[in-house]
Amino acid sequence: MSTNSIAVKWEEKELEKISLAEGVSVAKLRRLLEAGRVIIPRNAKRAAEAANRDIVLKAIGEGLSTKVNVNVGTSKDYVDIEEEVRKAKTALKYGADTIMDLSTGGDLDEIRRTILREVDVPVGTVPIYQAALEKAGLRAVVDMSSDDMFNAVRKHAEDGIDFVTIHSGVNLNSLARLRRSERILDVVSRGGAFLVAWMIHNERENPFYEEYDYLLEIAKEYELTLSLGDGMRPGCISDASDRAKFMEVITLGELVKLAREEGVQAIVEGPGHVPLDEIEASVKAIKNITDFAPLYLLGPIVTDIAPGYDHFVSAIGGAVAGMYGADFLCMVSPSEHLALPSVNDIKEGTIVTRIAAHVADLVKDEQRERARLLDDEMAHARKNLDWKTQFEIAMNGEDAQRIRNGRPPSESDACSICGDLCAIKMVKEFLKK
Amino acid sequence: MSTNSIAVKWEEKELEKISLAEGVSVAKLRRLLEAGRVIIPRNAKRAAEAANRDIVLKAIGEGLSTKVNVNVGTSKDYVDIEEEVRKAKTALKYGADTIMDLSTGGDLDEIRRTILREVDVPVGTVPIYQAALEKAGLRAVVDMSSDDMFNAVRKHAEDGIDFVTIHSGVNLNSLARLRRSERILDVVSRGGAFLVAWMIHNERENPFYEEYDYLLEIAKEYELTLSLGDGMRPGCISDASDRAKFMEVITLGELVKLAREEGVQAIVEGPGHVPLDEIEASVKAIKNITDFAPLYLLGPIVTDIAPGYDHFVSAIGGAVAGMYGADFLCMVSPSEHLALPSVNDIKEGTIVTRIAAHVADLVKDEQRERARLLDDEMAHARKNLDWKTQFEIAMNGEDAQRIRNGRPPSESDACSICGDLCAIKMVKEFLKK
Repeated sequence: MSTNSIAVKWEEKELEKISLAEGVSVAKLRRLLEAGRVIIPRNAKRAAEAANRDIVLKAIGEGLSTKVNVNVGTSKDYVDIEEEVRKAKTALKYGADTIMDLSTGGDLDEIRRTILREVDVPVGTVPIYQAALEKAGLRAVVDMSSDDMFNAVRKHAEDGIDFVTIHSGVNLNSLARLRRSERILDVVSRGGAFLVAWMIHNERENPFYEEYDYLLEIAKEYELTLSLGDGMRPGCISDASDRAKFMEVITLGELVKLAREEGVQAIVEGPGHVPLDEIEASVKAIKNITDFAPLYLLGPIVTDIAPGYDHFVSAIGGAVAGMYGADFLCMVSPSEHLALPSVNDIKEGTIVTRIAAHVADLVKDEQRERARLLDDEMAHARKNLDWKTQFEIAMNGEDAQRIRNGRPPSESDACSICGDLCAIKMVKEFLKK
Repeated sequence: MSTNSIAVKWEEKELEKISLAEGVSVAKLRRLLEAGRVIIPRNAKRAAEAANRDIVLKAIGEGLSTKVNVNVGTSKDYVDIEEEVRKAKTALKYGADTIMDLSTGGDLDEIRRTILREVDVPVGTVPIYQAALEKAGLRAVVDMSSDDMFNAVRKHAEDGIDFVTIHSGVNLNSLARLRRSERILDVVSRGGAFLVAWMIHNERENPFYEEYDYLLEIAKEYELTLSLGDGMRPGCISDASDRAKFMEVITLGELVKLAREEGVQAIVEGPGHVPLDEIEASVKAIKNITDFAPLYLLGPIVTDIAPGYDHFVSAIGGAVAGMYGADFLCMVSPSEHLALPSVNDIKEGTIVTRIAAHVADLVKDEQRERARLLDDEMAHARKNLDWKTQFEIAMNGEDAQRIRNGRPPSESDACSICGDLCAIKMVKEFLKK
């Protein structure tokens, strides 16, 4: 494990808190942070704020529990800051570790600043959305200057944003592979699409690749974590694991190395739509190619034909990806591919993604012992027909209780499935071990 | 692949239908049927009925598409035949391949016969429930005679039931292993619990094991398929993959062999609660130990702490198990561990299980090519922003459309997430491949 000069210096008491939360020693945490295999996204401005506010630090990466990000944000057609704040708070209630504001409608500065004020976990954004929107309209995306792009990053960093998605791997090289590919859906990443359009129209290299050193300067100044976006992620099962995608991963690996050399924390974003049997190879290959940078996955979505259920579909992929080493899962909502999510969509998406993360933690070497304590406690509560404890441990105890109460058993401490024929009760009586 | 004397003789035109549905040649189907690696559950009585009724044959096993069973049925506290019929029809609407009637309340004969009349796919039951219930009450379960048990099986077969779960592997041998185990939850299978209680109380071997040859006689007479139940299935993550479970699997393997020698079709039921990283070994070991009998899985449930979401928790396990060779997934409803399911629970459970089955088919050698046609069609419809086709292909197009319509885009053929910033539209315009 080669070490690098991570610029951020963590205080002992900060690392002790994380050590306690993760069950990993402070010494090990320091080693992993120095190697860039673990990152703690926190803007220097938010660090300064920490004296007056209890902002929770989240460590993401190798050997740690699987983290969950939840995206919120307005769109052109739906702008309601209060609703977006409710979404963010709902996500936190159900266990989100970080929030990303992906707003593309309304007063973007106000929304971002409100979210930062209201949310006490790391907050991320995709600054190019704002750069593009300030040019207003479809064609105008290509009229952004490289200054527009970097200024948006600086503005977000200045506000205190902890991590930003930057599609530096969408460069002329990966575009060339895309052109030679036989993809059905070409590019489905919004930021990726902006940059593909921009490069083609302007016949120029992506500024976030060409002037990556300038990006690192900004990141260093604000202790901003870079989430290197996967603009070439496949948008359907048929397009998965192709050369355009892996070309981008190779670039991202090189960019991770440069970031580490400058002491900038970096994570890598991954696909996308991937069939179940390609997830292991995909995760392991990306981890290797990027020198084991923390891996942040969108999905993977393991079938295309279940709109309305894409939170489930992604969580199947996320659980399996987590088992093979993914560190950070991005919630996909039930309205993915269909509409801007509602508060309830955010709730259901968050719960299901948290389940996937926990399922992965149950089988991750360093986490399984701790994760299983909860499952064992639930098993004991079930054996004792102790419903109160069951609802306390449950991922969503409120709704579990509502289901049980909706069809209560008439005269039994069991449930209305089996009533007096409860296997647990019967075996307890006869087996008396 | 050794062949056996399967008594049931399938007509060429019946196998041709299945061949078409599965994309497997008739010759290969015959070989797999003769080897017992594929089964087609159909009671001789239902075969006789087929002249007047269109009962759909379903083939289950190696190389075929992953099938889904949905359990319906009353309980002591909730007896409404019409509701159970609605549950069964809802399950069929959303893609269930078979229905099991697990009723334990009301007039069991009437319910079973109604379901058989209303349902045009294979129907299964667990006859020991009726045998036990006719003795009424908890203690009385142990007062069943072995005649009571076999008579219930005969009665169900006589009615035309196509497949029955029989816990023949819950014998003194596996009970001995259970006693030496350190399980938290001992036995959670209802039928398994009945037989454990019965064996302990009566100090006798399980009649379904001891008089297995008599069971085979009944099965042969009615061309009844045996689904060899996993009474020792683990009830929590901590209890997974232990000696009691594998002792039962060994017995089931021997019973599969005996069934095949008598020309009786047999499938094997599998766990249960299994952590994600033990599923591959579990599925492959069971398949090997049981000479590749079709494997019917309940779950596997991959965490204990998400009551209310166990349909989804099971679908994670089911998709992964399917990838490694499970043939038949039993729907688990959102109200599992909490209450008797409602019609809507059945709907959601069925859809999610069908998604898991399809996710598995996308990566099963013999099915992937056909399964991917659907996903590719969806990808093309997305590229063309052809919403009508998207809703036609979707697992649940009605609700997908409802989600889109709930937050429609104002002036765009895209959706309200991105509106005019649609990646697909932008790349289409600029990439023009």
